[in-house]
Amino acid sequence: MREWEHNIRNVEPYIPGEQPKSVGVIKLNTNENPYPPSPKAELAARDFNFDRLKLYPDPNASQLVHGLAKYYQVLDNQVFVGVGSDDVLSICFLTFFNSDKPVLFPDISYSFYPVWANMYQIPYCEIPVDKDFHIVAKDYYRENGGIIFPNPNAPTSLYMGLDEVENIVKNNQESVVIVDEAYIDFGGQSAISLIDTYENLLVVQTYSKSRSMAGMRIGYAIGSQRLIEAMQAVKFSINSYTMNITSLVYGSAVLEDEEYFQECVEKIIATRERTKRELAELGFTFLDSKTNFLFAQHKKIHADALFEELKKKNIYVRYFNRPKIDNYLRITIGTDEQMNKLFAALKEIINED
Amino acid sequence: MREWEHNIRNVEPYIPGEQPKSVGVIKLNTNENPYPPSPKAELAARDFNFDRLKLYPDPNASQLVHGLAKYYQVLDNQVFVGVGSDDVLSICFLTFFNSDKPVLFPDISYSFYPVWANMYQIPYCEIPVDKDFHIVAKDYYRENGGIIFPNPNAPTSLYMGLDEVENIVKNNQESVVIVDEAYIDFGGQSAISLIDTYENLLVVQTYSKSRSMAGMRIGYAIGSQRLIEAMQAVKFSINSYTMNITSLVYGSAVLEDEEYFQECVEKIIATRERTKRELAELGFTFLDSKTNFLFAQHKKIHADALFEELKKKNIYVRYFNRPKIDNYLRITIGTDEQMNKLFAALKEIINED
Repeated sequence: MREWEHNIRNVEPYIPGEQPKSVGVIKLNTNENPYPPSPKAELAARDFNFDRLKLYPDPNASQLVHGLAKYYQVLDNQVFVGVGSDDVLSICFLTFFNSDKPVLFPDISYSFYPVWANMYQIPYCEIPVDKDFHIVAKDYYRENGGIIFPNPNAPTSLYMGLDEVENIVKNNQESVVIVDEAYIDFGGQSAISLIDTYENLLVVQTYSKSRSMAGMRIGYAIGSQRLIEAMQAVKFSINSYTMNITSLVYGSAVLEDEEYFQECVEKIIATRERTKRELAELGFTFLDSKTNFLFAQHKKIHADALFEELKKKNIYVRYFNRPKIDNYLRITIGTDEQMNKLFAALKEIINED
Repeated sequence: MREWEHNIRNVEPYIPGEQPKSVGVIKLNTNENPYPPSPKAELAARDFNFDRLKLYPDPNASQLVHGLAKYYQVLDNQVFVGVGSDDVLSICFLTFFNSDKPVLFPDISYSFYPVWANMYQIPYCEIPVDKDFHIVAKDYYRENGGIIFPNPNAPTSLYMGLDEVENIVKNNQESVVIVDEAYIDFGGQSAISLIDTYENLLVVQTYSKSRSMAGMRIGYAIGSQRLIEAMQAVKFSINSYTMNITSLVYGSAVLEDEEYFQECVEKIIATRERTKRELAELGFTFLDSKTNFLFAQHKKIHADALFEELKKKNIYVRYFNRPKIDNYLRITIGTDEQMNKLFAALKEIINED
């Protein structure tokens, strides 16, 4: 090892789901939306003057911030935007979790949380979910340096009622509590309604799931002015201009198309409920999803084997080889047509078994 | 102060140059390119299928990485891309500078360096430039935890010959040495030619200046495979997908238009040389710029006053109220037409004085 290699940060990175490049793959592995984004994005792009690319984007991303503030009926200074919710969450860890006490998050949860904690040398404690994979609010009533959890949780797909979320916040007013709501639009109630009551509550959402814009990398946080200004100070200590001009333009444009948004979300919910019935008939059990994915296991065939067999048939789902969940598949809800192909493939695999 | 506020990271952010929103402003304050990007960007956009936005972008940004590797005749695994060179440099600080020894950089330099160092709690030492603002290579032959400097330097505009850059690298083979080449295309020789000789050398460049794409936020680093893989591990511990699909598409497309690129760079160099003559006639002195900006002072009128007077006339230049340079203006080279307006405005101000 050369001398300079000793100074290299040693980290264990998060591994995202595969992004297969071959055509014809049915991609149900990264919880993307199967429908295109609102046509307003393309319309905005048509009016775009490419001459504009030569200038830096607005470092405050005001257009997008203002659009989101209007959409959620909050103030502009209660909104923070970043390059996907991963960027936003990473900045949250850096900004809020500077304590010797452990940050708390569920043991079965977004597997990026421990990665950020390790990256920024933040102590943490993983709180076990109960035997049915539920987050138990009262387990979070203990000393901590901050709290973060997804609601609905991933990969479990389970939603916790807003009253329980509020209980966690109410019982932790000495900590910043972050609710990671990537999947909230598929059937949950957002904690954004609580931000004026609890100055220590931050809600994080994304364009990658319900808004069909994973390709644009847009995430945002909504919370009290004090929390947002603290995140801004950290953001401006890392990169002045994070949101490029196209993300500002497309991101703002689609907020103007609520009808299209609701339509897509409803279609996905309908397909999800149908998928539950179909999978049940095929011998699967699953948790009561309020997301755009199901967390399912088969009564006979191991998840690992199903994962491999589906892949051979060009259908990608997600499998986590981790304690407690290593016999589950996380299956994104695609179009009805895609799901029909999944059901057919599963039938073949199950019958061959 | 509430309890949770004690855990908030306390930082002093970098303040970027103003981005005035009013129309008709002559913007010579953030070293943007006055010419639009290659038309290949717009052509690529025309073919773009908006349906693609629903999917995550390639986390490895392979298309852009490969385009850059081909352009610079290096291997794909010698290239790292990020959301502007600020993102790339921030990741460099996190990745390479984990030492108790101080990181070295010039005292008159990119003012983001101490911000990143403070952000990530990295000790540093600012090495004074000489009385003519030159970086002196031998001042960097001392114990350190890493070295970073821009070449050409900003805001001084001065270029250091490749032999001197090599001397710094050669005399610091126990450290990672980063050459920040945001302005190299305007007349310097890149240190990319040295990366196969020195495994500890990393060169950082950007699309924001010579490639007229500040609005897209694309930066990159080129260095040995070992350095790049270390940066990748850190990047994948922060945000899996940093480059959105439009930056991948436009960023790759413009690399195919070398002729247009060279043409723009030559126009800017020609305007820069003409600007030197005009400013000299107006009583300015300035350093021998090899960038797309001049660092100039007037023999009679203080830079601060000139800055304010120009602003009143809707011409924005950059003024740094900092020791050693508080009587200098940093003036971006715009189009000939923009510079003519600057000269006329300066004449008026000087004659009124």
